[in-house]
Amino acid sequence: MRIGLLTGGGDCPGLNAAIRAVVKQATGEYGYTVTGFRNGWRGVVDGDVVPLGRPDIRNVLPVGGTLLGTARFHPHAEDGGLDGVLATLEAERIDSLICIGGDGTLHAAQQVAQAGVDVVAIPKTIDNDVEGTDLSIGFHTAVNIATEALDRVHTTAESHNRVMVVEVMGRHAGWIAVNAGIAGGAEVVLAPEEPFDIEAVVKYLRHRHRAHANFSIVVVAEGALPKAGSAMEYEQALGRFGEIVAGSIGERVAAEIAERTGFDTRLTVLGHVQRGGEPTPTDRILGSRFGVAAVDAASRGESQVMTALRGESVVMVPLAEIAGKVKHVPSELLRVAQVLA
Amino acid sequence: MRIGLLTGGGDCPGLNAAIRAVVKQATGEYGYTVTGFRNGWRGVVDGDVVPLGRPDIRNVLPVGGTLLGTARFHPHAEDGGLDGVLATLEAERIDSLICIGGDGTLHAAQQVAQAGVDVVAIPKTIDNDVEGTDLSIGFHTAVNIATEALDRVHTTAESHNRVMVVEVMGRHAGWIAVNAGIAGGAEVVLAPEEPFDIEAVVKYLRHRHRAHANFSIVVVAEGALPKAGSAMEYEQALGRFGEIVAGSIGERVAAEIAERTGFDTRLTVLGHVQRGGEPTPTDRILGSRFGVAAVDAASRGESQVMTALRGESVVMVPLAEIAGKVKHVPSELLRVAQVLA
Amino acid sequence: MRIGLLTGGGDCPGLNAAIRAVVKQATGEYGYTVTGFRNGWRGVVDGDVVPLGRPDIRNVLPVGGTLLGTARFHPHAEDGGLDGVLATLEAERIDSLICIGGDGTLHAAQQVAQAGVDVVAIPKTIDNDVEGTDLSIGFHTAVNIATEALDRVHTTAESHNRVMVVEVMGRHAGWIAVNAGIAGGAEVVLAPEEPFDIEAVVKYLRHRHRAHANFSIVVVAEGALPKAGSAMEYEQALGRFGEIVAGSIGERVAAEIAERTGFDTRLTVLGHVQRGGEPTPTDRILGSRFGVAAVDAASRGESQVMTALRGESVVMVPLAEIAGKVKHVPSELLRVAQVLA
Amino acid sequence: MRIGLLTGGGDCPGLNAAIRAVVKQATGEYGYTVTGFRNGWRGVVDGDVVPLGRPDIRNVLPVGGTLLGTARFHPHAEDGGLDGVLATLEAERIDSLICIGGDGTLHAAQQVAQAGVDVVAIPKTIDNDVEGTDLSIGFHTAVNIATEALDRVHTTAESHNRVMVVEVMGRHAGWIAVNAGIAGGAEVVLAPEEPFDIEAVVKYLRHRHRAHANFSIVVVAEGALPKAGSAMEYEQALGRFGEIVAGSIGERVAAEIAERTGFDTRLTVLGHVQRGGEPTPTDRILGSRFGVAAVDAASRGESQVMTALRGESVVMVPLAEIAGKVKHVPSELLRVAQVLA
Repeated sequence: MRIGLLTGGGDCPGLNAAIRAVVKQATGEYGYTVTGFRNGWRGVVDGDVVPLGRPDIRNVLPVGGTLLGTARFHPHAEDGGLDGVLATLEAERIDSLICIGGDGTLHAAQQVAQAGVDVVAIPKTIDNDVEGTDLSIGFHTAVNIATEALDRVHTTAESHNRVMVVEVMGRHAGWIAVNAGIAGGAEVVLAPEEPFDIEAVVKYLRHRHRAHANFSIVVVAEGALPKAGSAMEYEQALGRFGEIVAGSIGERVAAEIAERTGFDTRLTVLGHVQRGGEPTPTDRILGSRFGVAAVDAASRGESQVMTALRGESVVMVPLAEIAGKVKHVPSELLRVAQVLA
Repeated sequence: MRIGLLTGGGDCPGLNAAIRAVVKQATGEYGYTVTGFRNGWRGVVDGDVVPLGRPDIRNVLPVGGTLLGTARFHPHAEDGGLDGVLATLEAERIDSLICIGGDGTLHAAQQVAQAGVDVVAIPKTIDNDVEGTDLSIGFHTAVNIATEALDRVHTTAESHNRVMVVEVMGRHAGWIAVNAGIAGGAEVVLAPEEPFDIEAVVKYLRHRHRAHANFSIVVVAEGALPKAGSAMEYEQALGRFGEIVAGSIGERVAAEIAERTGFDTRLTVLGHVQRGGEPTPTDRILGSRFGVAAVDAASRGESQVMTALRGESVVMVPLAEIAGKVKHVPSELLRVAQVLA
Repeated sequence: MRIGLLTGGGDCPGLNAAIRAVVKQATGEYGYTVTGFRNGWRGVVDGDVVPLGRPDIRNVLPVGGTLLGTARFHPHAEDGGLDGVLATLEAERIDSLICIGGDGTLHAAQQVAQAGVDVVAIPKTIDNDVEGTDLSIGFHTAVNIATEALDRVHTTAESHNRVMVVEVMGRHAGWIAVNAGIAGGAEVVLAPEEPFDIEAVVKYLRHRHRAHANFSIVVVAEGALPKAGSAMEYEQALGRFGEIVAGSIGERVAAEIAERTGFDTRLTVLGHVQRGGEPTPTDRILGSRFGVAAVDAASRGESQVMTALRGESVVMVPLAEIAGKVKHVPSELLRVAQVLA
Repeated sequence: MRIGLLTGGGDCPGLNAAIRAVVKQATGEYGYTVTGFRNGWRGVVDGDVVPLGRPDIRNVLPVGGTLLGTARFHPHAEDGGLDGVLATLEAERIDSLICIGGDGTLHAAQQVAQAGVDVVAIPKTIDNDVEGTDLSIGFHTAVNIATEALDRVHTTAESHNRVMVVEVMGRHAGWIAVNAGIAGGAEVVLAPEEPFDIEAVVKYLRHRHRAHANFSIVVVAEGALPKAGSAMEYEQALGRFGEIVAGSIGERVAAEIAERTGFDTRLTVLGHVQRGGEPTPTDRILGSRFGVAAVDAASRGESQVMTALRGESVVMVPLAEIAGKVKHVPSELLRVAQVLA
């Protein structure tokens, strides 16, 4: 059997653990060959292939990023993209394609599968919003990095009597914001799941600082939303915030807090460091389990399925069940973030 | 309502997160009071109490250990222990006792509850072998520390062409050994779940070093067992291993490998560092969620229940369901450790 | 003897180690009392004092920030500021004032000393540009944090074939940029010590990517300067860069690289996280040694001196020798950064 | 010019940074070739060579250990060892040999140099006891790891009211013990520089626990020595300690404390983890600077010299000046460890 393998979308820690597991499991127990495609779907379209054996995966387990490279390229969105994919897969005589990626990659995977190729997907997104699995590769490390940043600004906030606003990733769901917010002891967490009222945030901070505290930490997911009908939502729609051309939501929240409370308020936008560096043991284990499970599924002839963590088990879920869905933070977790503020 | 709170058994990271959450949730939303008992059940017997309010839990979220202190003391195993517990709980007019602990504490909790006191338990053990919950407090940090140690001995093993044997905690189950073994890329993982044949281990290492490698890492859970009927089991029963008085299983495994293969073999016993230091974000979040859930359960008048993580949810499970059971590493995870060797 | 103690300027990790050492050494061996002033020089002016004993410094060694609080407030720059300082010091009967701070604090210290009060200074600045000492408190931790960030963006740069621009602190000297650049394997390091020619940077990156590489990391100190007479310097003077209102130097460098090379280029501005969090062992040791040495100097009646690390020794240097000077990165270190690119 | 390169003695973090710097500097600016010898001096004797170019050093900067391998093998102590070294160096036409190592390697380097080969040495030892340089490669990372371990046992010590004894490396000098002891807030530090009186240690612990504390941390260097003329020294000479065959000094100290105080006392022996894992930024920078400086020295035709850090400068020191000397911890640092207890 010939296995194809690619990593698509944004890079993150844990991808190499999955690649390593696919190669070890495929070439070991089963005696399959593994063909890697460079830079995600673009490498499939371009026929940019690299054979993968045991020497190629030596020492990659604790290394972030992806040795295959990746790109934000969607074959179904390009003219002739899908045809290119199918042509390469046929030329390389791929029996089963294992795709590691997020939303876009899962969508492409389904389209390729429907054209008749066996496809097994492995979910990866630091946003953790892929439906059907407790965890996606990369999320756990991102939470660790964001928590570490909160620990760091905490000491500065306390020493200088400041409000520190920290913007973290999470476009459609607030997994990083809520988890890091709880772990880092944030006073306010703004996540897409619960549109916020800036007036209520300000009121809470004023109350807190009057009562006993002299600092506060506010975590803002990049996809946090002002309450419908609020002035801030209106300004956001206009692309302006007061005098300032609208920047990120974090900038706007920090500016509002500074103006309305008069507190010394500072913003940190974490950015790319959230998706880099050494994977946590959890992401290494997750990638390893998903890689082994994906090869097992391919060996059984399964297709249009995705590896998923459910509690203590790794299971396969049909891509059709999860397509187009966003997994949101459950209300219990949102509430914990709130009651511990 | 008056909540009692104790931490029992060995200390571990994440306990303070749970204490903080109990205090915040109890004194905040509900307006309860919280009475802490010092040094586990011993403090209950001795009436060693400390009122807990918000100032007491400031800045403890990222701090390991337990601000209440703990002790390996089981009231049901002491003359008059249970009576002492009940007397203190009555004197302090405790409506509900929240006990954070492992095996021993859960057992004591059940006995106290059967004597008519409301008891809610929160599971904690770095061994992660409490039945009914995906995770217990402290385990996740221990896996991180053990993985970090494996990463460290890895570079030495490679540089010196050595076999490094690392003994980790896990008396009845191999959770730390298997997880750290996968995350740290160990070649051999010996866990209580699968009694090992030292001859097979040696044969595998010889084969591996002949084939391509010049180093190997062997992880041994402290509760790893030689195969029934083997010479090693016999020696273990005698309390001797060859000329040497039997030490830990790690010592014995290292000595056997050294003697039978002639490879330069070194042992590291991780010991107490596994239960110390700053909790990972995962342990902080777990402790926080369990603490909030325990107070919620107490407020509903529940008793003889334990907080548990199941997938993405926190649920309550009856103590009766889990009493006396050991949660073992599932076979899927054991297999991943094996195929990635 | 009565010792006064304050921390001034921006907070950083290692301040608590110094505070702890001052308190232990003063109250222990010597039997002095220690009076802390809250929020830097502002607390001296306002008479905001707190007696410091052993219980106050428990467990603060590994904690970032400063338990005394700090503020960017310069008494000599305020009307009656100096008089306020002297009045409080007299009211509190302070025999010797130990000031932990950077530029501004050292300057204030000298002014206060010249008014007749014994003053001993301890240097602190994450920029490490205080003359006369190998290290100032906070710098070492900042280099660690910046290096960690470079390690993280490295994997993303490689996976996505990107140029990653990372802006770090360092207004007048490039200590963080050069050290983190070497430790993090940066391809280009821009420091105030050597004004840069953006055309040369771009040429080097083009050459490198043509030759063999598909990614690069560029570290920019916030005080990096375009070469005199260059177009970029001119634009900087105008406060504009092309169409864009001039942001930080990092933004401008990233925009130039993107435009001139066409490479996918991303910016990360590290910001406040560089001054936060747990101090490294080196900063804890430095703070501890400086704290002990400062009390020793006070006990000998020394004034207008600063603790300093010189090789393996801690020595006292006269404030007059270092006033107004900026310590720059030596050329040997700048060259190492360059030859290892 | 042809440069030979080897790493000898025990491995440690930072060696790869030095190898990388030697290769970059030699092959870049100077256009030299670099020949690596595998497994230290053994590889020279055996002619086990590997050409080193830029592809060989990719991504090794943050990796512990040594890509060349190492061995505890001393050519001057083996029959014909020195002749074998000279024969290989001639066969490979090595103009200058760069040796990275500790005591043994420096000694061998001098012997080889006296036989007429140009030799430049780079000091490496986690014990930091090489004379003439502020720092040797590997020491800084070891202090970090030991401090982290102290931080971890600290929380357990506090939670359980225990005395934790931690044995760290340092055969002839107490650099790790004293630095980690200060950084980790140890109550007692036993280093070879000051032979200890176990009775005084016990008395101090008793006093401390009576006065206010309920836990203590004792750091013991593996080379710590009982006071001359004490019973413990006598027992050590006999190879027995009470009923027990003498183990490490840490074991003996822990047993004495336990017996004489009755306090719950636990031992942790850090062992191999101290020399493993990712180098700290400081060790990466030190290795980088030393590697560049060694090639520069070779290019100038220098021999029998060693790279050394002195304050902020890297200088070359003659091997003759440092041969056979042990660098001890200065008294100022020993005193800081004591006054902060």
